[in-house]
Amino acid sequence: METCLQPDTLEQSYRQYLDALLGAGLLIPSGVQGVYGLSGVFEDVIERFERYVTRMGAETHAEVMRFPPLLSRETYLRTDHLETFPNLMGSVHTFTGSERESLELAAQKAEGHDWTAALRPTDVMMVPAACYPLYPTAAGTLPPEGRTVDLRAFVFRHEPSIDPARLQIFRQREYVRLGTPQQAVAHRDYWLERGLGMLRSVGLPAEPVVANDPFFGRGGKVMAASQREQTLKYELVVPVASAEKPTAVVSCNCHLDHFGRAFGINTSDGQPAHSACIGFGLERIALALFKTHGFDPADWPAAVRAVLEP
Amino acid sequence: METCLQPDTLEQSYRQYLDALLGAGLLIPSGVQGVYGLSGVFEDVIERFERYVTRMGAETHAEVMRFPPLLSRETYLRTDHLETFPNLMGSVHTFTGSERESLELAAQKAEGHDWTAALRPTDVMMVPAACYPLYPTAAGTLPPEGRTVDLRAFVFRHEPSIDPARLQIFRQREYVRLGTPQQAVAHRDYWLERGLGMLRSVGLPAEPVVANDPFFGRGGKVMAASQREQTLKYELVVPVASAEKPTAVVSCNCHLDHFGRAFGINTSDGQPAHSACIGFGLERIALALFKTHGFDPADWPAAVRAVLEP
Repeated sequence: METCLQPDTLEQSYRQYLDALLGAGLLIPSGVQGVYGLSGVFEDVIERFERYVTRMGAETHAEVMRFPPLLSRETYLRTDHLETFPNLMGSVHTFTGSERESLELAAQKAEGHDWTAALRPTDVMMVPAACYPLYPTAAGTLPPEGRTVDLRAFVFRHEPSIDPARLQIFRQREYVRLGTPQQAVAHRDYWLERGLGMLRSVGLPAEPVVANDPFFGRGGKVMAASQREQTLKYELVVPVASAEKPTAVVSCNCHLDHFGRAFGINTSDGQPAHSACIGFGLERIALALFKTHGFDPADWPAAVRAVLEP
Repeated sequence: METCLQPDTLEQSYRQYLDALLGAGLLIPSGVQGVYGLSGVFEDVIERFERYVTRMGAETHAEVMRFPPLLSRETYLRTDHLETFPNLMGSVHTFTGSERESLELAAQKAEGHDWTAALRPTDVMMVPAACYPLYPTAAGTLPPEGRTVDLRAFVFRHEPSIDPARLQIFRQREYVRLGTPQQAVAHRDYWLERGLGMLRSVGLPAEPVVANDPFFGRGGKVMAASQREQTLKYELVVPVASAEKPTAVVSCNCHLDHFGRAFGINTSDGQPAHSACIGFGLERIALALFKTHGFDPADWPAAVRAVLEP
């Protein structure tokens, strides 16, 4: 998927769209790349698209669960995120010292020294993907029909970038399936097609592509190649800042029995459960809509507004 | 405000309500105290109450801004949170090392050793209060009429507890006023009365009380006493887990020129701006509603459902 773009050109495309979004007030700068406030107009587009997802997912009768942006450190360590994406992790630390030590902490800050050495890890980590907090709660035996769960969460990835679509903290809306291998694949394939139709119905020229996760290091290259060979991951991509390097706005993944084994989730016939998910990148979908249809939703095509109206 | 309750009794009240919420599936355990998933029913109550807040705030024509759960470390350090609430902070750390170092990291984890020493602080901190990310964006001179801003954000406070109303990560919906001392006090007083009316309209027996922030240490006791003496902070409290020790579900605060000075926000006549806010604790309000009216919103009194219906 690497294209032959001059880096300067791509960098310029990112900068140009970012500046336009900041200039229009749709994004509000925080001083950190990839961390922005959103205007009311931006948030409203996300809420409208989410209601569309809810309507389209209604027939699956999914269980709704909403997890906060933090998960248990112990749960995190039961996954292999630390081995495969260590560079993206977010570990939450705090101050647990005495009053005297707090004065030293404040003095370090006042003198411009590194004050973080006094901090200690808490029991929580930033959520790396919306489905992670689900798995420990599903330990045990699934019903024969498996389970389908509707999730939304803020997720964290430490990858500062000037690409306005590469946020460090953003919301994923997911439908996760837990069940047999057949149930998992069927879920992925159903949503791959349905997700493509949804994006096109709001005027986004989306295309499906075989993809891989950005596993860390040289060992990660082998994992990525294997993931692609098995076509475990598809993305729906849309031009956002750059037409030549389109942006993944939806991801449809089969995890095989990766999470089933890690968290002791079994099918009713005693096998490790398979899992699959579709994840809608809500901020990215809004960024694609603003890029495609302009910055004022009132001026968007009537057919698009009709889909996003209710 | 300290009552003479036996600690055992209060602890039992917390445990009892927490167990009931977990048993009913309204809260979903994460393995960490104060970090829970929410069921669809719970989330729906929050969304309905939020729409009520939006309707009641419409006449203020507030600017809508939505910030993520993270803010710039540099912004954090411009406040005095580190000096006054160090024990509540959340500092986000990550792995920035080489591939070789990542293998050492994984080995530390595998051997059950402390693997966090290899982590480095990122440019971001957990948001301590929904209004913090706003202030740096407001630097400069306000219009004569000041500004009113509508915020919602997840906020973090490291205070693990079995009290189901004391979450480590939760959502605040806020209306913040930036302006003259008179504008700030008027905003606080307006919303103190309006917030009380809103809570009572959904059947919550709310009462206003003078309050203080939980400043750290012995020095903090002096600050807390001063805050109470100046009646800068009011809370609207409702019995949740315990009738004897009611829970603050709304907070109405005057900050004087604390944030105006820290972030260079000035009124049109060149004075440091004053600020004030009302913050609705969304999870706590839902917990109060479940406690007061029962776990099934379909069975709530018709008058309450009418307010939360649209």
